[in-house]
Amino acid sequence: MASGEQQIITSDASSVNGKTTQLAAVCHGAVDLRVEERPIPAPGPGEAQIQVALTGLCGSDLHYYSNGANGIFKILSPMVLGHEAGGVITALGSDLPSTCTLKVGDRVAMEVGVMCKSCQFCKKGKYNLCTGMRFRSSAKTFPHLDGTLREFMVHPVDLLYKLPDSATQIQAALAEPLAVVLHAFRRANVQAGARVLILGAGAVGLLACSLARASGCTQVIAVDIESAKLDFAKKMDWATGTYTLPKGPRVSGAEAIETAKSGWEGLKADPAVAGVEGLADGFDVVFECTGVESCMQFAVMAALPGSKVLFVGMGTPNLLLPTGPSLLREVDMLGVFRYANCYPEALALLGSGRLGNVDQMVTQKYPLSQAEEAFQDMKRGRDKDGNAVIKPMIYSSDHQ
Amino acid sequence: MASGEQQIITSDASSVNGKTTQLAAVCHGAVDLRVEERPIPAPGPGEAQIQVALTGLCGSDLHYYSNGANGIFKILSPMVLGHEAGGVITALGSDLPSTCTLKVGDRVAMEVGVMCKSCQFCKKGKYNLCTGMRFRSSAKTFPHLDGTLREFMVHPVDLLYKLPDSATQIQAALAEPLAVVLHAFRRANVQAGARVLILGAGAVGLLACSLARASGCTQVIAVDIESAKLDFAKKMDWATGTYTLPKGPRVSGAEAIETAKSGWEGLKADPAVAGVEGLADGFDVVFECTGVESCMQFAVMAALPGSKVLFVGMGTPNLLLPTGPSLLREVDMLGVFRYANCYPEALALLGSGRLGNVDQMVTQKYPLSQAEEAFQDMKRGRDKDGNAVIKPMIYSSDHQ
Amino acid sequence: MASGEQQIITSDASSVNGKTTQLAAVCHGAVDLRVEERPIPAPGPGEAQIQVALTGLCGSDLHYYSNGANGIFKILSPMVLGHEAGGVITALGSDLPSTCTLKVGDRVAMEVGVMCKSCQFCKKGKYNLCTGMRFRSSAKTFPHLDGTLREFMVHPVDLLYKLPDSATQIQAALAEPLAVVLHAFRRANVQAGARVLILGAGAVGLLACSLARASGCTQVIAVDIESAKLDFAKKMDWATGTYTLPKGPRVSGAEAIETAKSGWEGLKADPAVAGVEGLADGFDVVFECTGVESCMQFAVMAALPGSKVLFVGMGTPNLLLPTGPSLLREVDMLGVFRYANCYPEALALLGSGRLGNVDQMVTQKYPLSQAEEAFQDMKRGRDKDGNAVIKPMIYSSDHQ
Amino acid sequence: MASGEQQIITSDASSVNGKTTQLAAVCHGAVDLRVEERPIPAPGPGEAQIQVALTGLCGSDLHYYSNGANGIFKILSPMVLGHEAGGVITALGSDLPSTCTLKVGDRVAMEVGVMCKSCQFCKKGKYNLCTGMRFRSSAKTFPHLDGTLREFMVHPVDLLYKLPDSATQIQAALAEPLAVVLHAFRRANVQAGARVLILGAGAVGLLACSLARASGCTQVIAVDIESAKLDFAKKMDWATGTYTLPKGPRVSGAEAIETAKSGWEGLKADPAVAGVEGLADGFDVVFECTGVESCMQFAVMAALPGSKVLFVGMGTPNLLLPTGPSLLREVDMLGVFRYANCYPEALALLGSGRLGNVDQMVTQKYPLSQAEEAFQDMKRGRDKDGNAVIKPMIYSSDHQ
Repeated sequence: MASGEQQIITSDASSVNGKTTQLAAVCHGAVDLRVEERPIPAPGPGEAQIQVALTGLCGSDLHYYSNGANGIFKILSPMVLGHEAGGVITALGSDLPSTCTLKVGDRVAMEVGVMCKSCQFCKKGKYNLCTGMRFRSSAKTFPHLDGTLREFMVHPVDLLYKLPDSATQIQAALAEPLAVVLHAFRRANVQAGARVLILGAGAVGLLACSLARASGCTQVIAVDIESAKLDFAKKMDWATGTYTLPKGPRVSGAEAIETAKSGWEGLKADPAVAGVEGLADGFDVVFECTGVESCMQFAVMAALPGSKVLFVGMGTPNLLLPTGPSLLREVDMLGVFRYANCYPEALALLGSGRLGNVDQMVTQKYPLSQAEEAFQDMKRGRDKDGNAVIKPMIYSSDHQ
Repeated sequence: MASGEQQIITSDASSVNGKTTQLAAVCHGAVDLRVEERPIPAPGPGEAQIQVALTGLCGSDLHYYSNGANGIFKILSPMVLGHEAGGVITALGSDLPSTCTLKVGDRVAMEVGVMCKSCQFCKKGKYNLCTGMRFRSSAKTFPHLDGTLREFMVHPVDLLYKLPDSATQIQAALAEPLAVVLHAFRRANVQAGARVLILGAGAVGLLACSLARASGCTQVIAVDIESAKLDFAKKMDWATGTYTLPKGPRVSGAEAIETAKSGWEGLKADPAVAGVEGLADGFDVVFECTGVESCMQFAVMAALPGSKVLFVGMGTPNLLLPTGPSLLREVDMLGVFRYANCYPEALALLGSGRLGNVDQMVTQKYPLSQAEEAFQDMKRGRDKDGNAVIKPMIYSSDHQ
Repeated sequence: MASGEQQIITSDASSVNGKTTQLAAVCHGAVDLRVEERPIPAPGPGEAQIQVALTGLCGSDLHYYSNGANGIFKILSPMVLGHEAGGVITALGSDLPSTCTLKVGDRVAMEVGVMCKSCQFCKKGKYNLCTGMRFRSSAKTFPHLDGTLREFMVHPVDLLYKLPDSATQIQAALAEPLAVVLHAFRRANVQAGARVLILGAGAVGLLACSLARASGCTQVIAVDIESAKLDFAKKMDWATGTYTLPKGPRVSGAEAIETAKSGWEGLKADPAVAGVEGLADGFDVVFECTGVESCMQFAVMAALPGSKVLFVGMGTPNLLLPTGPSLLREVDMLGVFRYANCYPEALALLGSGRLGNVDQMVTQKYPLSQAEEAFQDMKRGRDKDGNAVIKPMIYSSDHQ
Repeated sequence: MASGEQQIITSDASSVNGKTTQLAAVCHGAVDLRVEERPIPAPGPGEAQIQVALTGLCGSDLHYYSNGANGIFKILSPMVLGHEAGGVITALGSDLPSTCTLKVGDRVAMEVGVMCKSCQFCKKGKYNLCTGMRFRSSAKTFPHLDGTLREFMVHPVDLLYKLPDSATQIQAALAEPLAVVLHAFRRANVQAGARVLILGAGAVGLLACSLARASGCTQVIAVDIESAKLDFAKKMDWATGTYTLPKGPRVSGAEAIETAKSGWEGLKADPAVAGVEGLADGFDVVFECTGVESCMQFAVMAALPGSKVLFVGMGTPNLLLPTGPSLLREVDMLGVFRYANCYPEALALLGSGRLGNVDQMVTQKYPLSQAEEAFQDMKRGRDKDGNAVIKPMIYSSDHQ
């Protein structure tokens, strides 16, 4: 419980180097982001105070910025955005768990979903499904739990993970989307020798490619409508093959099925698949990272009988799915909602270098004071120099 | 390979008690079922000759009878129907596997899908997904492999299973749909203490209820639009609770979603669920045995976060599914296509009496010569005395 | 955290019906059990106060009573024994989890292992392996956490489980050993149709037989050296077959291997196994519930290739195991340490009646004031009337 | 069924380029290896004729050479040794499975265990446990099925796997021990981010290191008594850390336990483990590849609670195992017997280059005519130039 945030802080820890206030990027509603002064919180029992280094932006942040809401979850009071973050511990609270080895000065990644630890899902270790989950920068619960786009915050120590010496703060932030991907890989039971298809080469899809390569997948075929993203995946040696889908109008239902079919036919005819023995029969695992209806349908068609499709991207609440190709061939359809117990391995992987130079995914960097520019660039998909936005990063301090 | 059937048989085994021909119920096309004389086949290498005792009819048989086709698979030449069968071994061929312990006179259940044993799926033990599968009474492969609605047949011995002494020939036939259910239970990993929902109380749904009870499920809620079927489930002590869905016009797409929602709301408000702590949060497993779009949607809604829906019934090739409730709650959607490695346990369960008096599911019995009447009754859903048809059985001989 | 016990209680809840003290059966060392007055604790945050109904005794209690220690864990200060218990809620503390639906007067079973909720094992849902586990009546941690052999206690509400109306307080106590068995069944992935062997027909072995039957196992063969226990298993219809091992001197090492071999040969020749097709090839799962070296070896020999042996009983720290029969046949050897996430299903099963009349396992009942007599009887294995001790129960109050 | 070998061949295929006989390295008993002339077999139905390229030698070959037996399996008639082999298809028999895409001239790896395809284990996909398995160069079955140390052989086509163009014939031979390792990894469910310990750095242990790295393991600690082997593992970048165990006399039983304890204490104190946060608590998986009693005990001690030890090496039939550290911490002990369904992925991995330059593991090469020298070198552990023997390779032809 992040109790330190619920009260006015008067203890010493709320003053850092004589400062008692900090800046925070607060969303007040649709396209109403304000960089405001906020008090610096002191850590409560079981918590640490962290000076935030940086925060990566993701799609849900953009939804809140653009619409004041993410799907059905509306901002009911001003909320600090951001949930992919790293920082440095500046103070520790009382009553830390005996297993806690953290100390002031440690560089840490923050797992920002604070679970209840008492419901059946928490007890079973599936805390991503916790019914009482309070997730930073999500308006699902009220009072909202503030996000990481600020200078200082407090957080339970058992959701802080010390960075390997070899890991960067950028990697601390990337640990969040990587945790999603790792959770998907675990659900899919990906092991060395697998042949995988990844639909969508945004930040999550790219990390999926990278993890697939690091996991010993012998075929990693990436598909997107933007060949630039696929070129990046090839350049990083994350994809063994790529395929650019033709762009077209967003369709749904039966029309989407036709688009999906022709997409899969096109991929099957492409050397990336046609040149590999047996690959046109289907992939051992398909990771769908777009949330686009026709891609989710494509995913099912492209899976080998007896295999799994992981829906990492989320589309609209109801979708037409090719149940024939799924059920008759026992292609399991599995959703992926966040992650549980993935941070330690995600950070170890990032620190090990096995994923390659993932820091190159950060295409834009902004100081906290220019947070709004970051959101604007992200909305456009291009920065002011015309570069495509993959993963923008907002810096709260100069920690590395 | 059922080689004995591909040739004219002249050996002694093709004559049984001086008879060289037999009767067979042959489908020549839509509503064109003829009881004809056919030669008695002699067993080839690895095969046994079986005198068929009886055959249970199922929906796919009815499709062939009614339409000359089952979905996209049309009958291209006259085909004997039937695939849920038991019988008695009358002769054994040469070159039996060393593990074979069968002998003439043994009562056996027949697993009628003859797999290739060479493809990747067979090697992996997932032979239900075998790419070269030849399934009796299915027109998917050509030449079609004849079904069991006849007096004599030959079949590979390693797909014959000796009946426990305590098992009836009716149970040998019921082993086929039970194998489907058992396969679904394995995919769902059902264990004692689970709370399960079963949509549809036809033969497969009823067997699912029975198996759920025998598996130690503490809540087995059966749902159907026919309260008579649910009453049967209650009477047999297979369901701990039942719920009758209101009948309505068959709807699809978004309309079906509304039907599904109101169905689930109705069930949640019913004492069968409302009276059990936590059950309104969802079931540990949902078995969907209708193939009706709104029921498949209902199934997803009624599953606990982190649980599984097993689609045992098959609907149309594309269906609108509630992906929000599925993906955000990690409710896995799994298809069930036939079975693999289920016959030994299915027969042991039937013979053990743990499933209760399943023979009562046989609502009608016909001699082979009156096969057409069986199909007509099944088509109407009522026999000439007005009794509902759950599982009709056609007798090829008087073996018990 | 059972904080209420760490302090002198002055609040109202520490007085129950005007009483401020209670009786407790406290172990002060080897064969030094004293029924003493203790203050009634008031519930701290997240806790409930419970009036204990009864406590079942188990082997570890007996070890503390007899030796003042259980293996390497010595009692360092007086400790209340007992950890299989049910009771009634008499007061609730503050700050209960939002998922808590308990209220005063509820009948509850107590899961007595208080986990840390912060270590990697707790987060993963394997809280039985929690490194900070404080288990009531275990001297492993210090200060020891007192057990249930008393009139009143406080305990975290998320480790209390409301009894089904149909369940007895005896069943609340039996839920503890049943949870061990259920955990073993989950690790073994027991499903309907399995054929299992259970070595040892003490309380745990008997519950394993009962659960096996309730799980749809078609063969449940129980083995013990005491035919009376096996007769009980047969009478309850928990075992489908039994086999009495010849009694002999306790041997170890290579000698034990010979005993194990002859035991398995004897069982194979017995009609219980010889009469069942294929059973002499091995069982789908073997539950070893004795901790006796030769039985653990027997267990491995009696398992089917590719199956699992569950070591529920614990022997000495190092044992000679038949690695040849295990490794060459891929018979996995799995330990079972307590349980995690098993109480809800254990109680639902007990309440459902599917396990049969388990209350008959309680062979002796004592008031709390006569706790020592219970331990003495248990030590002898017979009560003063000469009845064998299976599960003795000590009553703290007259709640049912 | 390798029927072509059971008869005198007269068809054309038994003559290759006018040759009708070939050389074969035949073991006649202990230290009695003769390179003899044998007829060239023609492929029977479902078979191919292969010109063998090369064969890697392994421990079981050496046992037959040295003792005329491998454990309890004695050579009863002269038997060709060798079972790690690659070659080129020279002829195809009749009745090939429809899924077969092989053609004359294809480079193939041979999976040399010919399973029965009819027993329960084959049907379930666990064909390594097939009760009727006939494994080339194993004297377990009689008549023995000849091995690969010859120029020509026939083999079922569904046990031949086309090499990726990028794979060498050496890799075709290494696919056999790699299949063992891959099978172990699957049983252990190794996924990216795991931290693994590998005991023994012989050919199998080294391949385990290589596969661990390719699987994204972030810690791969290799342990051996020969620092030269560990240096090789480091040089290849297969191990992230190594530890040289002190050599000592081979001990067993309680003495071995002491050796195991001091080994694990030594490793825990070594920077390879002490320098990595939490690693001294235990590894996620331990692969034991020596079969030495103290190492098998060490393996259990070094595993994290809730993890798995894979016994890849086989020791004597009965071993003292630390059941306390195993059972109380739920460290599962799993054997590994050969492999099933691993060849396709093993070859794809080898061909992908992800495993590194595994061909460097081949430390010695011999022509078939000098097979005995290979066995002599292997027995000594050194070749005539004093180089350590890791994986010696015997060439039957000049195919690459």
